[in-house]
Amino acid sequence: MLALAGYPLGLEFVFLDPAAEACASPLGAHLHADYLDQKALTTFVQQIDVATYEFENVPAPAADFVAARVPFRPAPQALTAGQDRFDEKQMFERLGIPVPRYRPVDSLPALELAAREIGVPAIVKTRRMGYDGKGQVRLRNFSDCASAWQSIGSPALILEAWVPFEREVSCLGVRALDGSVAFYPLVENVHRDGIIRTARPRQNDPLQAQAESYLLRVMKHLDYVGVLAFEFFVVDGQLLANEIAPRVHNSGHWTIEGAETSQFENHLRAVTGLNLGSTAQRGVSVMVNFIGDLPPLAELVNIDRLHLHVYGKTPKPLRKIGHATLTADSEPALDAALADFQQRFGAYL
Amino acid sequence: MLALAGYPLGLEFVFLDPAAEACASPLGAHLHADYLDQKALTTFVQQIDVATYEFENVPAPAADFVAARVPFRPAPQALTAGQDRFDEKQMFERLGIPVPRYRPVDSLPALELAAREIGVPAIVKTRRMGYDGKGQVRLRNFSDCASAWQSIGSPALILEAWVPFEREVSCLGVRALDGSVAFYPLVENVHRDGIIRTARPRQNDPLQAQAESYLLRVMKHLDYVGVLAFEFFVVDGQLLANEIAPRVHNSGHWTIEGAETSQFENHLRAVTGLNLGSTAQRGVSVMVNFIGDLPPLAELVNIDRLHLHVYGKTPKPLRKIGHATLTADSEPALDAALADFQQRFGAYL
Repeated sequence: MLALAGYPLGLEFVFLDPAAEACASPLGAHLHADYLDQKALTTFVQQIDVATYEFENVPAPAADFVAARVPFRPAPQALTAGQDRFDEKQMFERLGIPVPRYRPVDSLPALELAAREIGVPAIVKTRRMGYDGKGQVRLRNFSDCASAWQSIGSPALILEAWVPFEREVSCLGVRALDGSVAFYPLVENVHRDGIIRTARPRQNDPLQAQAESYLLRVMKHLDYVGVLAFEFFVVDGQLLANEIAPRVHNSGHWTIEGAETSQFENHLRAVTGLNLGSTAQRGVSVMVNFIGDLPPLAELVNIDRLHLHVYGKTPKPLRKIGHATLTADSEPALDAALADFQQRFGAYL
Repeated sequence: MLALAGYPLGLEFVFLDPAAEACASPLGAHLHADYLDQKALTTFVQQIDVATYEFENVPAPAADFVAARVPFRPAPQALTAGQDRFDEKQMFERLGIPVPRYRPVDSLPALELAAREIGVPAIVKTRRMGYDGKGQVRLRNFSDCASAWQSIGSPALILEAWVPFEREVSCLGVRALDGSVAFYPLVENVHRDGIIRTARPRQNDPLQAQAESYLLRVMKHLDYVGVLAFEFFVVDGQLLANEIAPRVHNSGHWTIEGAETSQFENHLRAVTGLNLGSTAQRGVSVMVNFIGDLPPLAELVNIDRLHLHVYGKTPKPLRKIGHATLTADSEPALDAALADFQQRFGAYL
């Protein structure tokens, strides 16, 4: 989606992706190699003017190698800031951003102690390499500690208090090379199995200003360039930080049709040193993910004001293989369209 | 732009283009060969499920070769129907669509006779291979016949009456495989040197129904599948046929941001056998072409609600190398935005 947004700006793309069937490969040159393959990295930097990424688990040494040779945006410190959940939460605290209670954990006794301190229910998460609900186990009782420790298979963990949230929301900000910023409207996200199922931007959400203030603190702290996604829990009407993603984000896919400038175009504007475009909404919209499999194309195209985005990925359980954005003229019309869509295609959502 | 619209539908692309620097080449496999290269055509048809085109001067034998092997949409008879201006006008007349007075011309005496019959001013045009004002000479006086005959360098000509038009408009229709149709709103086009400079869709134009009726006659006659563009002169408040283009059209580029479904997506839906998407307008919009050179990107991106489309073509005098679509909430706001844009970037338009 970055490449599709970039060609109209006159950009061209080289992709470094260890996956043989990288979904971007038809849209530019594909260097099929491991992120740490020095030869591939050398070829990569020789072919490009600026590097960016849309996967937050790029290894830090790869980022450092590239950043030493071409502009790498967002910078390596932004990439790594969200890679370790413990470090990330410490950064939030230092920046005055409220977070759920948490403890680092490196042994079963430490897990049991942390569970006593934080209480149950709580969530055990790997500190690194987690996304889409992977590397997470819920502790319902203190007695779950041993089985959780066994099942998660990593000694570098964090225990987080379970948050009785009213809503899960995210806010996307974008920061240009000159430090100017723009923010998209707050998005309400519905998760299942740790994966976003629907993402719906809200107009004039009362928490918009607070979310922007938190985003701005993080962006300034990291000297950030590009789109930054910040996921929050809403508890007692207040934002509690969940996590950041230093990239374009699933909860911003609606911006392709629903905003004046998509998150993809604004990310590219930022990392290529251009000024940002308007983040204003165009009507109302909601995004639904297709998880694991795709409904029949011939049925999807019959839905009025549905905008389809197929990723060209092989269907696989719990894999996001596409999304659709529904647009409407009013919130009630969108409610009806979404309800109808979910009824017809619930098996794919 | 077809490929950019097609990837989100899950399509992939192979391009046959005799230009070494085909602007689509980063977006798929590029077979760099002449349209009549049998080996390339064979490779082409082996790699694709359906063929379409966005250039109306594809040689008929190439179209026939492909059409004999894979679905070729719009069909070869649609491709050729607009390739000869004389045949095209005869088709319009048979379908009851008014045309300016015209005569076929194959010699200087024939040109002089035709000029007497039709009157001056008039336009001499080559019957074939004309586009963007190429292959056209205006006759201002009868005495211009000899120089026009000399300069145009082709013996297969047509003389057309010069039309004192009030407006130049176009209408784009799209017809699906099952015969269902949809029409975009009438577009007002401003030409200079035979090239569209601005294209602006109108809401509820009084000539909309008439234009759709003419398009429908042509689409049915040709058993058309895909987007068909029909350009008209408006004289005394009535439509007079100018020409058709059996493809997505410059006067439809505004649909990317200005319509629910772009002309590109609807063309692809049609040629791949899917149902059509809504052609309803999203707000008001106007497209401006960049001819010969591109304004500085850093300035363009500062214009609010401007959507840029750079084609990746080498700048060259009178070559269209990109366009921008301006969107607004009202016609007066769009008037102001367009006037401001033309004042700032007039040198590129």
